[in-house]
Amino acid sequence: MPDSPTIKLADYLFTRLHQLEVHSVFGVPGDYNLRLLDYVEPNKLHWVGNCNELNAAYAADGYARIAGLSALITTFGVGELSAINGVAGAYAERAAVVHICGTPSRKLQDERVKMHHTFADGEYRRFAEMHKHVTAAQTELRDSRTAPEQIDWIIGQAMLHSRPVYLEIPDDMVDVEVSSTRLAQKIISPEALKAPSEPQILQSILDRIYSAKRPLILIDGESRPMGVLGEVDELVKTSSWPTWTTTYGKGLVDESLPSVHGMYTGKYGLDGAKAYFESADLILVFGPHYSDTNTNGFTCIPNQTSAVLFQDMTIHVGTETYRDVSGKRILSQLLQQLVPSKLQSIQGPPKPDTTLDKSSLTGPITQDYFYRFINPLFRDGDIVLTETGTASHGGRALVLPPGTRFFSAITWLSIGYMLPATLGAALAQRDTAQGKRTVLFMGDGSLQMTVQELSTIIKEKLDVIIILINNDGYTIERVIHGRTQGYNDIFPWNHRAAMTLFGAGEQHASENYLAARTWEDLTTVLQSPKVQEGSGLRIVEVFMDRLDCQGALKDLLQRQVASEKTEEPPLIASEVSKKV
Amino acid sequence: MPDSPTIKLADYLFTRLHQLEVHSVFGVPGDYNLRLLDYVEPNKLHWVGNCNELNAAYAADGYARIAGLSALITTFGVGELSAINGVAGAYAERAAVVHICGTPSRKLQDERVKMHHTFADGEYRRFAEMHKHVTAAQTELRDSRTAPEQIDWIIGQAMLHSRPVYLEIPDDMVDVEVSSTRLAQKIISPEALKAPSEPQILQSILDRIYSAKRPLILIDGESRPMGVLGEVDELVKTSSWPTWTTTYGKGLVDESLPSVHGMYTGKYGLDGAKAYFESADLILVFGPHYSDTNTNGFTCIPNQTSAVLFQDMTIHVGTETYRDVSGKRILSQLLQQLVPSKLQSIQGPPKPDTTLDKSSLTGPITQDYFYRFINPLFRDGDIVLTETGTASHGGRALVLPPGTRFFSAITWLSIGYMLPATLGAALAQRDTAQGKRTVLFMGDGSLQMTVQELSTIIKEKLDVIIILINNDGYTIERVIHGRTQGYNDIFPWNHRAAMTLFGAGEQHASENYLAARTWEDLTTVLQSPKVQEGSGLRIVEVFMDRLDCQGALKDLLQRQVASEKTEEPPLIASEVSKKV
Repeated sequence: MPDSPTIKLADYLFTRLHQLEVHSVFGVPGDYNLRLLDYVEPNKLHWVGNCNELNAAYAADGYARIAGLSALITTFGVGELSAINGVAGAYAERAAVVHICGTPSRKLQDERVKMHHTFADGEYRRFAEMHKHVTAAQTELRDSRTAPEQIDWIIGQAMLHSRPVYLEIPDDMVDVEVSSTRLAQKIISPEALKAPSEPQILQSILDRIYSAKRPLILIDGESRPMGVLGEVDELVKTSSWPTWTTTYGKGLVDESLPSVHGMYTGKYGLDGAKAYFESADLILVFGPHYSDTNTNGFTCIPNQTSAVLFQDMTIHVGTETYRDVSGKRILSQLLQQLVPSKLQSIQGPPKPDTTLDKSSLTGPITQDYFYRFINPLFRDGDIVLTETGTASHGGRALVLPPGTRFFSAITWLSIGYMLPATLGAALAQRDTAQGKRTVLFMGDGSLQMTVQELSTIIKEKLDVIIILINNDGYTIERVIHGRTQGYNDIFPWNHRAAMTLFGAGEQHASENYLAARTWEDLTTVLQSPKVQEGSGLRIVEVFMDRLDCQGALKDLLQRQVASEKTEEPPLIASEVSKKV
Repeated sequence: MPDSPTIKLADYLFTRLHQLEVHSVFGVPGDYNLRLLDYVEPNKLHWVGNCNELNAAYAADGYARIAGLSALITTFGVGELSAINGVAGAYAERAAVVHICGTPSRKLQDERVKMHHTFADGEYRRFAEMHKHVTAAQTELRDSRTAPEQIDWIIGQAMLHSRPVYLEIPDDMVDVEVSSTRLAQKIISPEALKAPSEPQILQSILDRIYSAKRPLILIDGESRPMGVLGEVDELVKTSSWPTWTTTYGKGLVDESLPSVHGMYTGKYGLDGAKAYFESADLILVFGPHYSDTNTNGFTCIPNQTSAVLFQDMTIHVGTETYRDVSGKRILSQLLQQLVPSKLQSIQGPPKPDTTLDKSSLTGPITQDYFYRFINPLFRDGDIVLTETGTASHGGRALVLPPGTRFFSAITWLSIGYMLPATLGAALAQRDTAQGKRTVLFMGDGSLQMTVQELSTIIKEKLDVIIILINNDGYTIERVIHGRTQGYNDIFPWNHRAAMTLFGAGEQHASENYLAARTWEDLTTVLQSPKVQEGSGLRIVEVFMDRLDCQGALKDLLQRQVASEKTEEPPLIASEVSKKV
């Protein structure tokens, strides 16, 4: 038996990631992963090197949402636990992050040596146990015979579920020789088989489609991990049926198409849209994700009898549920069998008027018109991100050009996420040549959480515009509860100094910080060459009032004020969003 | 039966914490804890409000190490997981942090509602499960009848073990009425009973003490959580026996006493000390903590036959182990029974010469003399902190005035910890009126991890001096592995702008940033009025070479260089510290 060709384990791993179009790797060095890091750049992967591990995890999540897969390298104990909230967010909102943790050598673990980055009690498994709660799969490489298969399996699990996975590599495994034979075969997600019920499901859906009088399409965010964006686009164009997205689905369909209405927000949108949605006789839902925050407090969920839900491996047709059926496969079959001439031509409800008479706006900038005012800034291919808070609520009103991608607060809502996610998304945009500009809307409170990652954005020379909404604290929290409480305040920063601290150089820093307090200022700032044709990081600080908000947030604020005037017990803050 | 007096649950909790001298509370607001935060300040606790939850956890750890107990408030999911690495560090190094997590209302949890900050799958227990791995006790308040007892129990557990605990408070429990009866009784840690073996143990230790010819005292860091610092001080003074500390024990004994030699560092210290230590016939060890990093790679552990180890509830006398015996109780008894006249008068080995001829130092500042050079800066009552890296290694050479406390890298070694810990320690220093100045030594790489907490130090107007060692990246990692690798570099910042960004005001920022590249600069800087008599935050940036180090780190570096010149396989980085 001839010997198989071999390769060092770390080379195997990074070759695999490179094959799968992962070109940048996030993380922080630590003594249990240093030898692993020796193999990153020789395998043509770019080592990013973040300021801390939570930021690295957030960035890896952002990268995966654009590129489909990403890699994060941390060190045992301290590094992996710093990252774990970011990993959990990737689980909640489905980003395929391969979390690679460099661990102490097998010898140290097996001998239960009281090493640093442990509790000095000989127990080495606790952090892996913790990761089981927030990752789709876990494995530890301890045997050179099985390591290649384990690596392939775990990466495959990340891709299949579009969720994070956890891969432990003991320090002494990094350079063991493993078989390279499998590298000749690509990692491919298992194909869904034809389900016995498939013809019946297809017929049932086609019947509903052909008989629909008030149909609509609702694109939710799990369409992305399902990998059905091409199919959904085809259906939207073929049918020309009225189409909405959820918050999570925004940016996954071309909003410039005549039939696309933007985001469905129930009572916060047009009456006509609400009436149409609520009386629809067929709602085709792709990638449903029914959390409170993604459904306006459960008020934007289609009624069950009219709805057909396409999920990864489940289809709901009205009250019938079919399991072990691929949503992607059914949708593909549907598109093949669909006879467009049999579809009703639908005149949907009026679309929202997104024009804005800017000439009427003078004085202080307010949330109500801000997002429509700034909308012309966007271009094809941009990535637009709106951080949890007034920015994510306001961003619902944006109308995006074709080919843009959009990130918003969905379910995990970890404040501070969006800045490192911007780094990750912008790097993925560059690595996949999908566009060249990224625009982030965020508040001054959020900025404080993860501000140092501005440094990595500067280091990587990414073309990022940050619209920094300075409303003097956590306005989103004030709106929910504690309108005037000190705990919702933040210590005021001088944001003008940020780029200087984080290494942009004095000249870039001074030329690329712009501020606006009035609509007039904002007009000037948005027309400035730095914003329009500039490069690198630019920060536009926009000052707004502490309690200024719009849409659903205004309702929350008004309810809080009203409850203070009565003798009623205070609202249970955690239940507020359920009641919007 | 008359009704018991009642109190709102949150008032009960914060009254308890106030009784126990917790005066400042760390954390970040989030919608599941906002109503809880309403009760903090009315109960005369100061709400700190950190920039992010990891920093808050680190700060709470720092506070607890000085004040004995601390409180951290986070929100469900996102907040608590961001904090969890800091909580784990408090477990590893024994800080009594009460981690209070505001969770969704019982209704939402029981109905498995798909709320934000969950994985939208109805599962609410995963984050509590994760906390079981890193806390000494956990409880969830769900029943108004048992809540007071649960609160008392969990705080008692934190105090007893000097470890973090995890307390979940559903949002709708915050203002339920609970019995206030228990508040009249203080929470007291259970007293250790007299163990049957106590007389035998005492006699055995006394025999060893009276017959010792080459005895010594070794103070390790768990003396602090054991609460035996007073007793140890008495023994050191009564016996005048040669006394050393470990890294963890530094700052727990008065280093100005003639018999106190400072830190025992084995081959990196004086030959005479090493010879004495290794041939000692009795080593009294208080609070042993034998991790690799606290024992110079296991080379500074007393030999078993000579050692008597005092732990929380275990005593080791040579090869005999006695369990369920209180170390504190035995030590107290020992002091009562000890007849000082029976003790050998011991002339220990020579003490290290800590004087320094400053006049011979010119040109660039180097690690070898830096810590002795700066030593005159310290005053009685200071807290001195040295962050993991060259700072923690260098800080071993410091000789501290009486009444100072010292933090160094021990076992958890989470880089970034020390800056927020400085905030926490300085607040505890103020709250307990133990002193008024805190001095932090840290590197430029560490700073990037948690830099924003400078803002909270400024906000709180704490008198903190930061000695920022700028050696252009992660020198500690370079020394271990990857001496010239790019992954150990960091993006260079302009630290001069830090205080401006973080809200210190232009004038304070410009007057209180000082830089030194040479010994001459450093002399000037250290004599400046801002350093000597100033207040608030001051940053002294000291530039050193990328690979400049001393002590054990120099050995690591030399070994790395040597191994590169041979054909030997590279050292397993994770095992390096074991082999020092």
